[in-house]
Amino acid sequence: MRYEWISFTTDYGLDDPFVGICHGVIARIAPNTRVIDLMHTVPAGEIRHGAFTLSQAVGYLPPAVHLAVVDPGVGTTRRAVVVVARDGLLVGPDNGLLLPAADELGGARAAFELTEPDYRLPEVSATFHGRDIFAPAAAHLAVGVPPERFGAPIDVRDLERVSSPAPSVRPGAITTEVLMTDHFGNIQLAARADTLADAGFVEGQQVTVHMGEARHIAVIGRTFEDVENGELILLVDSAGMLALAINRASAATKLGLVRGHFPECVLSGPTG
Amino acid sequence: MRYEWISFTTDYGLDDPFVGICHGVIARIAPNTRVIDLMHTVPAGEIRHGAFTLSQAVGYLPPAVHLAVVDPGVGTTRRAVVVVARDGLLVGPDNGLLLPAADELGGARAAFELTEPDYRLPEVSATFHGRDIFAPAAAHLAVGVPPERFGAPIDVRDLERVSSPAPSVRPGAITTEVLMTDHFGNIQLAARADTLADAGFVEGQQVTVHMGEARHIAVIGRTFEDVENGELILLVDSAGMLALAINRASAATKLGLVRGHFPECVLSGPTG
Amino acid sequence: MRYEWISFTTDYGLDDPFVGICHGVIARIAPNTRVIDLMHTVPAGEIRHGAFTLSQAVGYLPPAVHLAVVDPGVGTTRRAVVVVARDGLLVGPDNGLLLPAADELGGARAAFELTEPDYRLPEVSATFHGRDIFAPAAAHLAVGVPPERFGAPIDVRDLERVSSPAPSVRPGAITTEVLMTDHFGNIQLAARADTLADAGFVEGQQVTVHMGEARHIAVIGRTFEDVENGELILLVDSAGMLALAINRASAATKLGLVRGHFPECVLSGPTG
Repeated sequence: MRYEWISFTTDYGLDDPFVGICHGVIARIAPNTRVIDLMHTVPAGEIRHGAFTLSQAVGYLPPAVHLAVVDPGVGTTRRAVVVVARDGLLVGPDNGLLLPAADELGGARAAFELTEPDYRLPEVSATFHGRDIFAPAAAHLAVGVPPERFGAPIDVRDLERVSSPAPSVRPGAITTEVLMTDHFGNIQLAARADTLADAGFVEGQQVTVHMGEARHIAVIGRTFEDVENGELILLVDSAGMLALAINRASAATKLGLVRGHFPECVLSGPTG
Repeated sequence: MRYEWISFTTDYGLDDPFVGICHGVIARIAPNTRVIDLMHTVPAGEIRHGAFTLSQAVGYLPPAVHLAVVDPGVGTTRRAVVVVARDGLLVGPDNGLLLPAADELGGARAAFELTEPDYRLPEVSATFHGRDIFAPAAAHLAVGVPPERFGAPIDVRDLERVSSPAPSVRPGAITTEVLMTDHFGNIQLAARADTLADAGFVEGQQVTVHMGEARHIAVIGRTFEDVENGELILLVDSAGMLALAINRASAATKLGLVRGHFPECVLSGPTG
Repeated sequence: MRYEWISFTTDYGLDDPFVGICHGVIARIAPNTRVIDLMHTVPAGEIRHGAFTLSQAVGYLPPAVHLAVVDPGVGTTRRAVVVVARDGLLVGPDNGLLLPAADELGGARAAFELTEPDYRLPEVSATFHGRDIFAPAAAHLAVGVPPERFGAPIDVRDLERVSSPAPSVRPGAITTEVLMTDHFGNIQLAARADTLADAGFVEGQQVTVHMGEARHIAVIGRTFEDVENGELILLVDSAGMLALAINRASAATKLGLVRGHFPECVLSGPTG
């Protein structure tokens, strides 16, 4: 099985040559494989952010080897792995980063450690496994080296998982974590669209947003311009999750959110 | 007509997977088409900034479908369109973003709404039309689907236009808007190179720059090092526009400019 | 000789269309050549940062024309050059940016000025030679135009060089410059791994880090998690250089470093 595409997700940022170097490593091993840079600005070391980003994106990508590196434990005993899902392969550290995306790709069916020296760079550094282990593995997989050639099999039930935050829903109230904020300041909540109906909320209704000490009023709507400039709206975002947004401004700024330090959020209606 | 290239301009920023997801959508529909990321850091919602950026760049790009999304009205009644220019196609929201570039590409000759469901993703969200409508349309156009298959024709005179700021020039004085500032702090003015001669200004001459309450002296020169470090220079930039710059420093910082809040600029000579 | 790849390094930043425009220029001349964006966030005008970044990366890239533009002297008399190394070509300004990478590629063997009008854009601006001179040259070189066709030969001994900071090492002490900091706040020193042994330092040992007025204790280790969260570690980084890091935090922030203003660093042991 060969793949024409590698998707690439990291917390390497854009201030350094790390991403470009990995592109170079891939180009030397798999010159005809093309790389889609999904995102390199996962907040440093934030495995959950990387995991949920990748899982919300893979459904829109072509069949690929999905290379993901958010790896605060680089150089320690955490395993390097390839996960075989029904609809693609995932390569990265075994720290929870890969499994939510594997679930979206039909589920993890097998996994193997990345230990075979033939599929690593000749010298492996202690701090840049993206370059030395993961990018070479993704490239070799893309050109058709079978996953079982990379190392010992791992029972997929033994792979690390990030906790999947479940919202608590009752009539008139949704209690949920914040998953992520984006460039526009939209706040994605850990609650799917159907929790709106479960709570008895309907479009056009006002809800109170309790976040930390603050209280805000939001209108349930469909898109940003359903409210006046500056007003808070609760909508279903493009990943099918509830999100708080402000028309032509940043909800994250208005609600005082800082990436990596998100308070719990309670949405309550008049009956909540 | 097929296109080997799609150029891609947005205000999606680089903090999220939005750009990468659109690359994935394009790759699934048009796997052999290559994408040139022109710029994804148009200030959020600033249609004019996106429009002028794209219009100054298209002349340097290969024949392409130019995909551009700066779309504060996403999900509302603003139309999604493909504009057929003499030398390429443009895809994006009908909010003024596309026409300056169409002018550079020989002029808009036809336009069509993007309403045909076959050329959208199966589910269209209310907030991410880049993924669900625009990227699929650009990809289908690149592989040869004719523009008229996407929806109803639109008279090009009915397309939205951004106002094109015209400088006011008289002997000894140029009054102009600021168009954009760049990464280096260079300040691009809405006045073409020939306004210098129209005002009777010559290389080596000093002019007074009136910007808001401030007054600065600038020397008319050809390139940054024509002045000492720290000195203000008025030059013709690489897009053929007048620009204010400082050798090895930021003119935008020195003049206190903030992106999106640009005061009018008056350049006056001794006779102005 | 043709090249399938162009690597691309600049200080153009990601806030503007400059990088995308150069991609367009390359695509028009060399449509089948692929571009690896190594890094576009070299601090503005910092030639040394660009030079060391490129030299540490080229060994991981495929055979390529390496296009690099950090060019504070654009439009002045500094020369535009192509440098022929044993294992690749380098294109950029003759200001020191290219030679460290040429050394890594087996050494500079010849160099030529880029003056031939046929291999520039028809109009050359005073301020954007990346677009008008360097990108076209890289593209023409990639499709096989011989370097000697671009202009007059230059003796490689006459090319500009950046100073190569040499550490001073004696038993118990290493005195060195800081080369660069990265996205994670790791501090790369201008001392190679073998200076550790030369100074008599061993893994697990504590050293005192003198940086400006400050004194810090660091442990010599192998990877970030060899110390507790928040502790300073001295390790050999992925480029084979000594580096100071903090597990799950930024050493650059803790030590108060500002890009472009790096104090000298002294590492001393109990006998130092």
